[in-house]
Amino acid sequence: MGNGLPTIGDVARLAGVSPQTVSNVLNSPHIVSDTTRVKVQAVIDQLGYRPNSAARQLRTRASSTIGIRIDPTTSDGVSGAALDRFLHELTQQAEDRGLRVLLFTATSPEDEIAQYTKLRDTADVDAIVVTSTVFADPRLAWLRNERLPFVAFGRPWGNDLEDHRIRWVDVDGHEGVRRATQHLYGRGLRQIGYLGWPHGSGTGDDRRLGWLDACAELGIDSTAELVAEDRVPDARVAVQALLTGGSGVEAFVCVSDTLALGALMAVREAGRPHFPVIGFDNTPVARAVGLSSVDQSLDAVAQAVVDLLLGDGSRIVQPIPEDEPHHRLVAPRLVVRRSSHLAVIENTPTTGETV
Amino acid sequence: MGNGLPTIGDVARLAGVSPQTVSNVLNSPHIVSDTTRVKVQAVIDQLGYRPNSAARQLRTRASSTIGIRIDPTTSDGVSGAALDRFLHELTQQAEDRGLRVLLFTATSPEDEIAQYTKLRDTADVDAIVVTSTVFADPRLAWLRNERLPFVAFGRPWGNDLEDHRIRWVDVDGHEGVRRATQHLYGRGLRQIGYLGWPHGSGTGDDRRLGWLDACAELGIDSTAELVAEDRVPDARVAVQALLTGGSGVEAFVCVSDTLALGALMAVREAGRPHFPVIGFDNTPVARAVGLSSVDQSLDAVAQAVVDLLLGDGSRIVQPIPEDEPHHRLVAPRLVVRRSSHLAVIENTPTTGETV
Repeated sequence: MGNGLPTIGDVARLAGVSPQTVSNVLNSPHIVSDTTRVKVQAVIDQLGYRPNSAARQLRTRASSTIGIRIDPTTSDGVSGAALDRFLHELTQQAEDRGLRVLLFTATSPEDEIAQYTKLRDTADVDAIVVTSTVFADPRLAWLRNERLPFVAFGRPWGNDLEDHRIRWVDVDGHEGVRRATQHLYGRGLRQIGYLGWPHGSGTGDDRRLGWLDACAELGIDSTAELVAEDRVPDARVAVQALLTGGSGVEAFVCVSDTLALGALMAVREAGRPHFPVIGFDNTPVARAVGLSSVDQSLDAVAQAVVDLLLGDGSRIVQPIPEDEPHHRLVAPRLVVRRSSHLAVIENTPTTGETV
Repeated sequence: MGNGLPTIGDVARLAGVSPQTVSNVLNSPHIVSDTTRVKVQAVIDQLGYRPNSAARQLRTRASSTIGIRIDPTTSDGVSGAALDRFLHELTQQAEDRGLRVLLFTATSPEDEIAQYTKLRDTADVDAIVVTSTVFADPRLAWLRNERLPFVAFGRPWGNDLEDHRIRWVDVDGHEGVRRATQHLYGRGLRQIGYLGWPHGSGTGDDRRLGWLDACAELGIDSTAELVAEDRVPDARVAVQALLTGGSGVEAFVCVSDTLALGALMAVREAGRPHFPVIGFDNTPVARAVGLSSVDQSLDAVAQAVVDLLLGDGSRIVQPIPEDEPHHRLVAPRLVVRRSSHLAVIENTPTTGETV
């Protein structure tokens, strides 16, 4: 081709066989005679010929690549760590099944859809992994209608969860918060408060229900509820106000590690370092400050995403057969550290005990 | 091709022209007559033919893709956040210049080299970005010898830094720690200690020299030096021991946010919440707890990486011309928060003031 790299044609010419025979030696050696195979292989070695992915991709129309959006660094950065961890796990699990992960960025849902279009039209990816799903997510509707294979990490809130054309994996946040509440109850606490996001987000509302249901099951009070935007200072101010008001609340389950960190600061400033707090996401911050937290089991989430894409095989399945499940709800794990042990949280952070 | 997607041959047949003419319409329309162009374009639209990346890749032997390793989640996780942030910045900067980022994993330097080989042999990437360089890094030697284009984020420690075949970008850690020390001096402190990693790492030794040089320039004592592995509890224990020993040290500059967090815990437990501490990396943990920290300017690092790969053009340059610089040393920024303000660190975290 003029750039010095040998082609399949060069190999064929020098070996005195057809390009198809060279292709057979590489892809179906069992149908080629031993003599021919040895001869062709010698020329391949001599020329240093390498079959390339682009050629295979043209042949199979498959890139074996998954596209996923990566966001700009968030201002707060505590919660973004969970998506970063998911990306690490996804890359590992995908690689174990022969898939690569290609990154892209987008400034809005519309821009993200434009990126999908481009990646599909250039055949750079075979499937998309969608993260941070929102209510009536336009990305899911587009992907479903265009029949581009995809899996959402996050439920298709506001869509029919049973719609077989929308594959999704999510963490059972309801169950995670329920277990956190039960854990505090098991340690003798009866006034367990909840610090959540403003209502209306699928994920936040689901987690909040886990607290309400646990309180109902345990027969304890569920009036101590605080709401804050997902920022450390907002949580700190909200908890400060509650503690100053002389509330009888004895512990907090929080919708995120970000809010839990603000709560920890507030209880410490109020001279109550033993006040139990549990976060959600098990971020590096939780590990660093010894905060108990609900871990999203992102290894299991990543594995489920890859399973839903590949089924039992090695090619991306589209559409997924009607008799096979098109979604997975992953059980989270509660990681118990000092912040829920009624101990001073500044003590040595530990790896944590999983409940 | 039997799978229903139209090929360039289908377009050529239906338009009554050669495949080369279709290719010219797509890639060099100025050499095609208007009549032909309109006719071919109509068939392209009619069939919904899309030139695909695999075909372009075969033609140009370029994938416009950079490969980068992504590590498993680290046990500690505080410092890994900097590499995650770099990945976000790199994806953005690469995309702005028409390049994609492909992820892979590796369990060892040897395994990483095996991955390079595979990615090169399949033409899946045009270049590699190497992170976390170590002394006499075997990955850099391999990439240099194989002439696979690459840029290292991190100096080629133990190699000739002027070797033109090794492109690299690094943060000037010496300068960052020097500024942190000067900043504390400017706030009236004279006994400024250093909490570093065990000697022998290129990055750690470079940062430590920044402290030593600043102390020498300022004419202050540089004997209060502590060493700890990069884990929060190790740092905490080391600083505890020093404070219990009745040292006169008044502040600490730390080689990482991980160690700085351990130091913060120790000084707080010792009843000295106003004791100034400065970290390095400006991780989410630093933002969350109000820790002053040296920011690596990862946006500038990512831009320098892409610049060294592409030069002024849109194709990856190999080799880089002898008269052009093959490396960049990026100046870090000191982000000042409450931990270096002689104030209680639990107060509202702020975005920070950049020095």
